[in-house]
Amino acid sequence: MKIKLIYFNFPFWRAEISRISLFYGNIPFEDVRISSDDFAHVKATGTLPDGTVIPTKALPCLSVDGVSFCQTGAIARFCGKLSGLYPNGNNVNCALIDQVIDICTDMTNCISYPINTEGEANRKSFRESLFEKDGKLSKNLESLDSIVERQNCTTKDALFFIDDNLSLGDLAIWGIVKWLKSGVVDFIPTSLIDNYSHLNGIFNSVSKISRIKEWQDKKH
Amino acid sequence: MKIKLIYFNFPFWRAEISRISLFYGNIPFEDVRISSDDFAHVKATGTLPDGTVIPTKALPCLSVDGVSFCQTGAIARFCGKLSGLYPNGNNVNCALIDQVIDICTDMTNCISYPINTEGEANRKSFRESLFEKDGKLSKNLESLDSIVERQNCTTKDALFFIDDNLSLGDLAIWGIVKWLKSGVVDFIPTSLIDNYSHLNGIFNSVSKISRIKEWQDKKH
Repeated sequence: MKIKLIYFNFPFWRAEISRISLFYGNIPFEDVRISSDDFAHVKATGTLPDGTVIPTKALPCLSVDGVSFCQTGAIARFCGKLSGLYPNGNNVNCALIDQVIDICTDMTNCISYPINTEGEANRKSFRESLFEKDGKLSKNLESLDSIVERQNCTTKDALFFIDDNLSLGDLAIWGIVKWLKSGVVDFIPTSLIDNYSHLNGIFNSVSKISRIKEWQDKKH
Repeated sequence: MKIKLIYFNFPFWRAEISRISLFYGNIPFEDVRISSDDFAHVKATGTLPDGTVIPTKALPCLSVDGVSFCQTGAIARFCGKLSGLYPNGNNVNCALIDQVIDICTDMTNCISYPINTEGEANRKSFRESLFEKDGKLSKNLESLDSIVERQNCTTKDALFFIDDNLSLGDLAIWGIVKWLKSGVVDFIPTSLIDNYSHLNGIFNSVSKISRIKEWQDKKH
C-alpha cells in the first residue's frame, strides 16, 4: 500500500494526528510537505503539480494507492486503523473517539475569524469572546474535559481516553492542547488550557510516550 | 442494545441520516423528539430532564445502553455499521464516506450567519456570497459533485456513491440536497442544486427506494 500524507510544513494537529499515527505504528508513508506555490496550484486546478487529486482543494489530504481523500477525521481514522490506534469491533468506543475528533475540529473552526473581522481591535474582541463564559471555545473545552472525566480514567498514573491504551482520541486532544498552549493563536492566552485538568492529564500522558518524543525530535 | 436517538422534531439531515439508517436496517430505536423546554434544560445542565447526558449540549445525540455521544458523523457511523450502510473492512471506502459526511457538515456550518450579521440586508448579502463563484457553499458543492463523478457510477440506472449499494454517503448527500431544495434556507435559491448533476443523481436514486419513501410517509 502506497500512502502519501499531504499537508503544509508545520505540525498542526489536523495533519499531526495522522502523521503520528502512522509513525507510531511503523506504517511506511510519504510525508509530503507542500509549498505555497503548490497550494496555489491546488486552489486553481484541484490537483498538485504531479497530478495528485486534492478533492476539496484543502489540506490535509491522504492518497492511498492513487485514491485521494480529504477531511481530518476521515484521514485520521484510516491511519488509526492501520496503526492500532482506533478500535476494531467496539463501536461505542469508535463513536466516543469520533466525537472527540469532531469537537477538536469544531474548536479549530470556531477560532477562525468571521469573514468581515478586519483590524486588530475587532480581531482581539472576537477571539476574547471565544473564551468568555459561554464563548464557543470555552463551551467546547468544557464539554471535552467532562467527556474525558466521564471516561473515569483519573486514578491511573497515565491518563488515556479509552482504557489504558493510546488512541486517536488522545492524539486529537494532545494536538489541540499543544496548539492552544503554544502561543501561536493570537489573543488566546496560553494559560487558558490550565483550567481543564483532564485535557491536561491526557496531554501529559501522551507527551511522555517515547515514540511521540522521537517524532517531535525528528520533525518539529 | 437499547438505542435512543435524540433530536428536535424535524427532519434535518444531521439526524435523518441516522434515523433512516436504523429504520432501513430494521434496528429498533427510540426516536426521541425533544421540546424547546427540554433543550433549555440541556443548555443549562448538560442533561435531559430524565438524566440522559448530552455531552456537547448540542443535538443530535445518541444514547446506547446509557452511554451518550454527540456529533453527526460519530452517530451516523455507529448507526450505519448496525444497519449495513457503512463498509466493514474496506477502509478506503469508509474514508470516502467519512469525507462526504464531513463536507456536508462543512456546508451546513458555512450557512450559519456569522455572529454579527444583523438585519435582513446583511443576512441576504452573506447568504448570497456563499453561492457566488468561489463562495464557500459553491466550492463545497462543486467538490462534492466531482467526488461523486470520480466514483464513476454514472452509467448505472441508479446512482449510488459506493458500488451498487446504498450507504451513509448517499444518505448524507440525499439529506443535504433535500434541505437545499426545500426552500427553508433563506436567500439560497432552491434551483442552486440543479447545477450539480451527480448530486442530483444520488438524490433521485435514494428518493426512489421504497423503505426511504415509507420513512418519509410515516415521519415527515
